Amino acid sequence: MRIDRKRLEQSMEELGRIGETPRGGLTRLALTDEDKRGRDWMVARMREAGLRVTIDRMGNIFGERPGAAALPPVMMGSHVDSVPTGGKYDGQLGVLSGLEAIRALDDQKVRTRHPVTLAIFTNEEGARFQPAMIASGVMAGKIALEDAYNARDKDGIRLVDELERIGYLGPEPCVARPIRAYLELHIEQGPRLEEEGLSVGVVEGIVAISWSRLAIHGVQDHAGPTPMRIRHDALVAAADVVAGVRRIPRELGGDLVTTVGNLTVSPNIVNAIPGKVTLSIDMRDPRDETLDRALPRLDWLVRDACKREGVSYELEHYWRVPYTPFDREVVAAVERAAKASGARYRRLLSGAGHDAQYMAAIGPTGMIFVPSRGGRSHCEEEFTRLDDIEYGANTLLLAALDLAGRV
Amino acid sequence: MRIDRKRLEQSMEELGRIGETPRGGLTRLALTDEDKRGRDWMVARMREAGLRVTIDRMGNIFGERPGAAALPPVMMGSHVDSVPTGGKYDGQLGVLSGLEAIRALDDQKVRTRHPVTLAIFTNEEGARFQPAMIASGVMAGKIALEDAYNARDKDGIRLVDELERIGYLGPEPCVARPIRAYLELHIEQGPRLEEEGLSVGVVEGIVAISWSRLAIHGVQDHAGPTPMRIRHDALVAAADVVAGVRRIPRELGGDLVTTVGNLTVSPNIVNAIPGKVTLSIDMRDPRDETLDRALPRLDWLVRDACKREGVSYELEHYWRVPYTPFDREVVAAVERAAKASGARYRRLLSGAGHDAQYMAAIGPTGMIFVPSRGGRSHCEEEFTRLDDIEYGANTLLLAALDLAGRV
Repeated sequence: MRIDRKRLEQSMEELGRIGETPRGGLTRLALTDEDKRGRDWMVARMREAGLRVTIDRMGNIFGERPGAAALPPVMMGSHVDSVPTGGKYDGQLGVLSGLEAIRALDDQKVRTRHPVTLAIFTNEEGARFQPAMIASGVMAGKIALEDAYNARDKDGIRLVDELERIGYLGPEPCVARPIRAYLELHIEQGPRLEEEGLSVGVVEGIVAISWSRLAIHGVQDHAGPTPMRIRHDALVAAADVVAGVRRIPRELGGDLVTTVGNLTVSPNIVNAIPGKVTLSIDMRDPRDETLDRALPRLDWLVRDACKREGVSYELEHYWRVPYTPFDREVVAAVERAAKASGARYRRLLSGAGHDAQYMAAIGPTGMIFVPSRGGRSHCEEEFTRLDDIEYGANTLLLAALDLAGRV
Repeated sequence: MRIDRKRLEQSMEELGRIGETPRGGLTRLALTDEDKRGRDWMVARMREAGLRVTIDRMGNIFGERPGAAALPPVMMGSHVDSVPTGGKYDGQLGVLSGLEAIRALDDQKVRTRHPVTLAIFTNEEGARFQPAMIASGVMAGKIALEDAYNARDKDGIRLVDELERIGYLGPEPCVARPIRAYLELHIEQGPRLEEEGLSVGVVEGIVAISWSRLAIHGVQDHAGPTPMRIRHDALVAAADVVAGVRRIPRELGGDLVTTVGNLTVSPNIVNAIPGKVTLSIDMRDPRDETLDRALPRLDWLVRDACKREGVSYELEHYWRVPYTPFDREVVAAVERAAKASGARYRRLLSGAGHDAQYMAAIGPTGMIFVPSRGGRSHCEEEFTRLDDIEYGANTLLLAALDLAGRV
């Protein structure tokens, strides 16, 4: 059993043209017109493959290939939304590898005991609506449907209104249903597989993640006649926080990573002392205990930075996902499949959140990683060699077949 | 000779409603619909006062009250554009005090030897189009008309197209013409007058100003799986620069002020390592020599910060205005007028740029400051007591009359 490398490459090219950037990347923010076109393209391909397509109330798309028995499905899934000026591999590759796996089963006229379902989750990236993975979060019962509906993008537009506008506010309830297993192929987004010359990562779990937001309130004033001695500059305090956040991993050691990715200044003009700055803090570590130690450090350094500049602030730790170990049986199935595909592989943890994180709360879950060149992702330079993609997609196919049971 | 305090108060209220923010400030960016409505209101009042109104090719508005002889005018002026969420005193107060001075001359049927002209300059703030004071800059021959026309706002819209759209692309050449004197009343935008309990500042000159822009190019990547050791984070380098810019005045001492007012992160999402940051550096000092010493320090600290983080950058010092001393005769006339108005006053320098800076290259120039509560400006909390405004407007009236010569 093998996937058709040429056909997979062709679907990557076709879907990759929807929302393509001039420099060959992808801007396909969740629930925009580009996302709608990407979804429409996928639904057309799923129908061509004979799948029974349903849409749920969060816009998640499911395409089922029936099994021999009325049993819970093996679900393969990922997402088609991207970050702004992101790449053509993050998300898209998982969805297209799943489609290709189903086409390969059809080519060989393979019947499986369990149904095999392809899933496309809404707003995985969290680039437009927060939090990330909002739709699998609702499905797993971790996020209230109403809260997800009321999530607003930076222009104040509600998620539910955009779902309706693009025609993906489906009728099916968005709730946990029994699954035989959930499998997600994704790019690693880190440097390890490439550094070790491997094609496939057998993912054992996802690191713990903490997101915080900080609003700093200084005193907006004119940059000229305001002496340094009376300034309360929100950006000076924010710069101190950015430097402090960068120091936390050095202080705590281990695999902790910390990032200030979003920072917005107001009024943001050359000749005004910034009156307000908002910024995000993203911290991740394989061990929940490390985040438990990092968060109070963040509290302290924010308090100190704001005290030094004489500014007030609000700091909110608004999202926390604990370390998510994947299912031992599914991880073992992925490992067998990687071996059978002929790939060089290793076990590792995911540093990025994925819908698999919430799916692990619903049923037995595992992931397959393929290498990211230079470890890079969320950028136009994202790239994975087709040889590695082929190993990864074959691993997905063989693991799904193993878990679904050939009849 | 006195201005009518009630009438001035009423015009402040009326013009202040155009572009008013919910919190009582002002957002009237240059050449927007609000700016047009503010201009239209002013032109109507100028015509009511019998002034001959002309508009030049940069949209500067002039309203002339004839003199007894064909001599160069005493010009009083300022601007009606504001920064975003700015206040109701910066600019507007100077224009309305000039209007009130002319109305007071009319009340008393005073004839002057020189004409008295009220001027409203386009895009003084530089909040929408850069550089600031662009239209007086063109008039003084310091900025080419073509460069000014091609200045673009953040949405890429050209200044000349907006001038035309709002109907203020006038027919008169925007060039230097002989003036008897230029006088500008403005809020201090600093704390000194208030701290010393004074109502009027007799401005002796404007500090030297330097504007730079910095673009930092890091490596955009995913905030999760990218180990700290391989990161090149543009925002970490930028934070280092912000902290360094804040340190320069401590190192050089004196009256130097330094500000990073504008900072923009790309892609600016929670879970991406910032790939690009652009930021502005504003530095001002009464002595040109201090800026000559500050600029190389800025060069070094940017180089060091970017080297530490392994990122590349472009740093451009794109605007520099030398220290501008005002005309001794005009400053003396302002001082006499302040005294005659009964105000408590002092001589001081302006820390902010004003159109008076360019007008000083055209003819004898001076300024009158009134206090800013808490030294604050470029914010909704801008405030000057009406008692101080009355002293300031009377100083303007008396100085203009002195320089224009009563017949």
